[in-house]
Amino acid sequence: MPGNRVVVYQGPGSVSVETIDYPKLEIPDEVATGFGVKRKAPHAAILKLVSTNICGSDQHMVRGRTTAPVGQTLGHEITGEVVEAGDDVLFVKEGDVCSVPFNIACGRCRMCDEGKTGICLNVNPARAGAAYGYVDMGGWIGGQAEYVMVPYADFNLLKFPDRDQALEKILDLTMLSDIFPTGYHGAYTAGVTTGSTVYVAGAGPVGLAAAHAAQCLGASVVIVGDMVADRLTQARSFGCETVDLSQGTPLPDLIEGILGEPEVDAAVDAVGFEARGHGKGASEAPATVLNDIMNVARAGAGLGIPGLYVTGDPGGVDENAQVGQIGVRLGLGWAKSHYFVTGQCPVKQYNRQLMNLILSDKAQIAKAVNATVITLDDAPTGYQQFDQGAAKKYVIDPHSSIAA
Amino acid sequence: MPGNRVVVYQGPGSVSVETIDYPKLEIPDEVATGFGVKRKAPHAAILKLVSTNICGSDQHMVRGRTTAPVGQTLGHEITGEVVEAGDDVLFVKEGDVCSVPFNIACGRCRMCDEGKTGICLNVNPARAGAAYGYVDMGGWIGGQAEYVMVPYADFNLLKFPDRDQALEKILDLTMLSDIFPTGYHGAYTAGVTTGSTVYVAGAGPVGLAAAHAAQCLGASVVIVGDMVADRLTQARSFGCETVDLSQGTPLPDLIEGILGEPEVDAAVDAVGFEARGHGKGASEAPATVLNDIMNVARAGAGLGIPGLYVTGDPGGVDENAQVGQIGVRLGLGWAKSHYFVTGQCPVKQYNRQLMNLILSDKAQIAKAVNATVITLDDAPTGYQQFDQGAAKKYVIDPHSSIAA
Amino acid sequence: MPGNRVVVYQGPGSVSVETIDYPKLEIPDEVATGFGVKRKAPHAAILKLVSTNICGSDQHMVRGRTTAPVGQTLGHEITGEVVEAGDDVLFVKEGDVCSVPFNIACGRCRMCDEGKTGICLNVNPARAGAAYGYVDMGGWIGGQAEYVMVPYADFNLLKFPDRDQALEKILDLTMLSDIFPTGYHGAYTAGVTTGSTVYVAGAGPVGLAAAHAAQCLGASVVIVGDMVADRLTQARSFGCETVDLSQGTPLPDLIEGILGEPEVDAAVDAVGFEARGHGKGASEAPATVLNDIMNVARAGAGLGIPGLYVTGDPGGVDENAQVGQIGVRLGLGWAKSHYFVTGQCPVKQYNRQLMNLILSDKAQIAKAVNATVITLDDAPTGYQQFDQGAAKKYVIDPHSSIAA
Amino acid sequence: MPGNRVVVYQGPGSVSVETIDYPKLEIPDEVATGFGVKRKAPHAAILKLVSTNICGSDQHMVRGRTTAPVGQTLGHEITGEVVEAGDDVLFVKEGDVCSVPFNIACGRCRMCDEGKTGICLNVNPARAGAAYGYVDMGGWIGGQAEYVMVPYADFNLLKFPDRDQALEKILDLTMLSDIFPTGYHGAYTAGVTTGSTVYVAGAGPVGLAAAHAAQCLGASVVIVGDMVADRLTQARSFGCETVDLSQGTPLPDLIEGILGEPEVDAAVDAVGFEARGHGKGASEAPATVLNDIMNVARAGAGLGIPGLYVTGDPGGVDENAQVGQIGVRLGLGWAKSHYFVTGQCPVKQYNRQLMNLILSDKAQIAKAVNATVITLDDAPTGYQQFDQGAAKKYVIDPHSSIAA
Repeated sequence: MPGNRVVVYQGPGSVSVETIDYPKLEIPDEVATGFGVKRKAPHAAILKLVSTNICGSDQHMVRGRTTAPVGQTLGHEITGEVVEAGDDVLFVKEGDVCSVPFNIACGRCRMCDEGKTGICLNVNPARAGAAYGYVDMGGWIGGQAEYVMVPYADFNLLKFPDRDQALEKILDLTMLSDIFPTGYHGAYTAGVTTGSTVYVAGAGPVGLAAAHAAQCLGASVVIVGDMVADRLTQARSFGCETVDLSQGTPLPDLIEGILGEPEVDAAVDAVGFEARGHGKGASEAPATVLNDIMNVARAGAGLGIPGLYVTGDPGGVDENAQVGQIGVRLGLGWAKSHYFVTGQCPVKQYNRQLMNLILSDKAQIAKAVNATVITLDDAPTGYQQFDQGAAKKYVIDPHSSIAA
Repeated sequence: MPGNRVVVYQGPGSVSVETIDYPKLEIPDEVATGFGVKRKAPHAAILKLVSTNICGSDQHMVRGRTTAPVGQTLGHEITGEVVEAGDDVLFVKEGDVCSVPFNIACGRCRMCDEGKTGICLNVNPARAGAAYGYVDMGGWIGGQAEYVMVPYADFNLLKFPDRDQALEKILDLTMLSDIFPTGYHGAYTAGVTTGSTVYVAGAGPVGLAAAHAAQCLGASVVIVGDMVADRLTQARSFGCETVDLSQGTPLPDLIEGILGEPEVDAAVDAVGFEARGHGKGASEAPATVLNDIMNVARAGAGLGIPGLYVTGDPGGVDENAQVGQIGVRLGLGWAKSHYFVTGQCPVKQYNRQLMNLILSDKAQIAKAVNATVITLDDAPTGYQQFDQGAAKKYVIDPHSSIAA
Repeated sequence: MPGNRVVVYQGPGSVSVETIDYPKLEIPDEVATGFGVKRKAPHAAILKLVSTNICGSDQHMVRGRTTAPVGQTLGHEITGEVVEAGDDVLFVKEGDVCSVPFNIACGRCRMCDEGKTGICLNVNPARAGAAYGYVDMGGWIGGQAEYVMVPYADFNLLKFPDRDQALEKILDLTMLSDIFPTGYHGAYTAGVTTGSTVYVAGAGPVGLAAAHAAQCLGASVVIVGDMVADRLTQARSFGCETVDLSQGTPLPDLIEGILGEPEVDAAVDAVGFEARGHGKGASEAPATVLNDIMNVARAGAGLGIPGLYVTGDPGGVDENAQVGQIGVRLGLGWAKSHYFVTGQCPVKQYNRQLMNLILSDKAQIAKAVNATVITLDDAPTGYQQFDQGAAKKYVIDPHSSIAA
Repeated sequence: MPGNRVVVYQGPGSVSVETIDYPKLEIPDEVATGFGVKRKAPHAAILKLVSTNICGSDQHMVRGRTTAPVGQTLGHEITGEVVEAGDDVLFVKEGDVCSVPFNIACGRCRMCDEGKTGICLNVNPARAGAAYGYVDMGGWIGGQAEYVMVPYADFNLLKFPDRDQALEKILDLTMLSDIFPTGYHGAYTAGVTTGSTVYVAGAGPVGLAAAHAAQCLGASVVIVGDMVADRLTQARSFGCETVDLSQGTPLPDLIEGILGEPEVDAAVDAVGFEARGHGKGASEAPATVLNDIMNVARAGAGLGIPGLYVTGDPGGVDENAQVGQIGVRLGLGWAKSHYFVTGQCPVKQYNRQLMNLILSDKAQIAKAVNATVITLDDAPTGYQQFDQGAAKKYVIDPHSSIAA
């Protein structure tokens, strides 16, 4: 039996590619013990990876902003081919090419019944919700790898209807495991609909995905804000308006310059807890983006918050931030009757629809986020460049299966 | 033409009953000027008050926690009889007894089109939304009075179908102007539905109304928390469970003692920005309740926040609180995929339904909040007793029209 | 290994109790073949029945109004104790007492993802949706029996939290498998909410369940119509108003006599395709009820249609009715902007909530439908009496486990 | 005071342009009398028409398929400039160019509160809902005219933000009064969303508008069916797939030829009660389209029914059709758990959003429906050509204000 090469966290600023055991049809020991269920997993499948992306939330770990231990395997944006399936996997088969939602979910609990797969109750004894290759998320092996084990495979896997078509559009389809649904969730829960004006804070991949999702939802104008010029250029490349936050001009003024009024119908926080203040050299200020979007969202607006906020941040700017407590201008939101939607995107609520958009050429998410293919061995370099603000979404191709 | 006696703010801790001009069919000058419209208001009606309640949000002004000037007229929980109607009032008539939503709304703007009457765009030049007798809310005269002018009367007034029946049930119907819909809004937006377990923070009138509303929405168990023993007794009087927060026992433990688990399906903040910490002698800590409800709401829950948070609080505990910025444990809510609904209740979305419940004897809101009738002259005493935590909802009867 | 005694259809008007094989952890051959999956079912469990009810839709078969063959096993309203569980049943265990939704669903298809378990795509090769013991519903063995096999047990079973409590409230809990959720679905999809006035057509068990569900949803007035006096008496016993359709008075007039207006906010068709016209001796007229509810539902109302309409009815009144085509006054509904919701109730969307209502004593469904316990041997008598219009819901107790 | 030239019905197949009185700020006598309100209308405005379209529903009258009397004024798709405003018109002003929803609504009743402006309770004593220039719709004067009176102008008028921009895009904006929102309503209520496959029955202007709306809502594939070759060509011109129903091939087969499966996610009936059967020379068969869309909509789908069904059709094919009772295969829909949404589109729910799409160049509705400008004098010719199946949407330009 072969081994399995996988990206591993080696301490702040450092990842490497290591060889670990080939996956088994078993759930992690901590999950089995925690819930008093069998380790043996007839519901699981093993996938040979076709593509696996580097995510901004991986960077939180790699920057040392979490309690991830050295040795943590990484990767939760997984697309692959089924190569082995347990006895109770009935509806996907060997050879099927599938997208894997980053949320691990059982399909058998109350939360899964309600479609809330981001907070499944049966996959992580420590809290609701789990993911591949992530600290405090159940101990599931990461998928920036050659192979990965997917539990509850019939429930979790989204099969592409045609293998050849899938490989042809793989740079778009690879975004279905996380970033495109996550961006869509941000826009959708903010209430973006036909004719909306939208502000997306952050032009990293999630922000760009939220911006493209807003377009797919029928927004009339999508404005993206960031402090990195290249990222703003990327946003303009697919039809967004942009505002440059590095100059210190008040955000409402910048929006008024575009729309003729200082407010938008819906706003998305695609940044999260590592937010910085505005202007050149601004330091970290974790509620900046939240307070910004309350400021520019009109009364009655929704605020979609796919950007990650955490319960513990050892590197936080102060004691409060270190326990996830931040200075929110809640009075402002309350006066405007805002509603706020937080949490992990439940990928399964959106991935089939978005797959259909991609397969019918109605969405160009790879172009929007500037998908860039690298080898598994190049993953450490990819992490570095992404951390430095490269306006790229890195797609790892562990088996050289993506055509040039 | 007669004058009009009305309750007036006289400085921190003090109100009096003063005589002002009898109302005219005119909108406030600041509104007319701000929007460039006529003062003359053919859409308005004048009501002779049948009842008008003292509200917890009036107390924020009277305690000096707002910028309300001396001379501010008070009162926004109004029920009355139409005694004069403008030329464009077509569907209510003299003699109709009506409930008046505390939100003043035009019925002609985009927000009103969407049912968001709490943030009407045409009634307050300073921000979205207006109310009678409230600081920064458009300059509309207060309704703890003998008479009051109601603009856009066809839109704002809810006519009771039968005058005699209305007077018979007036102690329940008087709660339709604010507190019953506001409590319902809190429970409804928190997602309370058939079978829910619910935690309501605060056993003042809004909390009790939210608790009764949760019952009407089909909750299986409603738990109310407070630090005042009389208010908890009141909550138990109509079938709620209660938790006493004055003793310092952690809230999740108290809830587990009732439900067998430390979390509920939905939670309501019926306290707002003047929250205190837990335990005897706890001092003000404005995010306490918000952080509490995140702590005890299960993953995926909704948080209804009818409790008021403000943009400016001169008496706030620190500089941040004074501009409405408070230390929210957003990371906790995010990890649980909570959603938050804030803002004034749009009364018109609920008052007709709740009237039907009352008229068919399916709701007993007067009993739940302990409605207590006083004269207009007793209003100052009512304010004092309410401020001291009396487990009562004071209903002013300016014309002695409520039968003993 | 023991056999299994089960109720079997023996031709029009006749059922008997027969002994068949004890169930195996296998899916029906027609399902396995139809979908190309294994018969062996590690996802399945075997339940020893605690209770199992006779349903009005069983009567359609027994009256010969379907293509059910002689030998069809019957029964889909199942509550039981797990006595055997497959290798991939992880979250229910031997000894758990559970409610079984009458819809069989896989939990792994697009419809199940959306909560539409009544039209699961993986359990019936002939069409979307399956049920136990029903013609054209996938060939699953009926559950008016001693034992039954439940596939996808983790997904389908609703475990009661406490065994003793469950047995104590079994006459209420037994209604969770079909009738209470089905009635609730009818009321809910008709838009019944706080304060609604509601008309329920039909005072059989589903109609009574819809009426009680409407009360749980906060209706202000619930009116039930039927032509059988005993059933109307039963409806009045838990607080409904009633209208007697046997006398030929126009329905709007009857409703006006109760409400003071001839229309209601929401209406439910709890009769279906075997509807009769109004007045004494009225003959079958399949669209009568649908046209009735359009007639009395106000403009903008919803129409919930849990009553069964079929695609083939060999005993239909004419050629059109025999293929399920009936004369609907669609112009009337269109003029009133009605919406219509049809189809099997997806039980899993409601059963947990309704269980919580029952366990907290907030619903008394057994009393509403007049639950009446009989032995398995008495099932044939129960079928007869129910067919003759007995105002009872028959609950079969195959193992004498229900206390007198 | 000038007169007003308006299109008038002259009997089956015939319309003419006649001169009537210039409009007054008064509501129709039948409305005033019916509701016991004043005729004088300080809430009304008079508009000078910029454009006014011929609608398919006008054709029902002109073909003699309604009880419209000779002399009925016509026209309800109105865009114009405010030239006079009553004393209680506050938020639109002389010179504003506005779209007029074809539904007349008061903004002051329960239905308007709920956004259901198509069934306003205060504008038509005969039933809920009214429109300009339509039989049985309240007696309001038609707007295929030089001038028209709009009641409740603040509520009904949608002001375009910029006059010059409005005139430049007038051929798109003129579709906001009816056809674009009506098509959108059909698609939206059918559940069309990101990635949906959609079938639209009928390639007349409403069908084409529904198809374009489905694109705006994010459909992956939109299929339009009709029997007129030119209309299908028009549908293909903006990216729709088409199926030709004139050849007798079963519709599911045609759809399978496009999608690889015989069903769609959502279906729209844009034909209504004058439907014909399939194949060359098929005669009228009023439930054909409804039964078609049930046939090709997948289980769980929604059916949007903007196509008109009437309560009385003197020219109906049989006695049942003459009272709007048609042979619906309800059993089929029930087996698939379909839901059906009927009724007039409430234009105000959508027109602002769709205006924003047009003004940001995200929708090209004029191109989709082939907007074709004619003079008021050419209206009779326009009616004839449209009746003969011209793949055009006729836009009348009464004051020669549309640039060539």
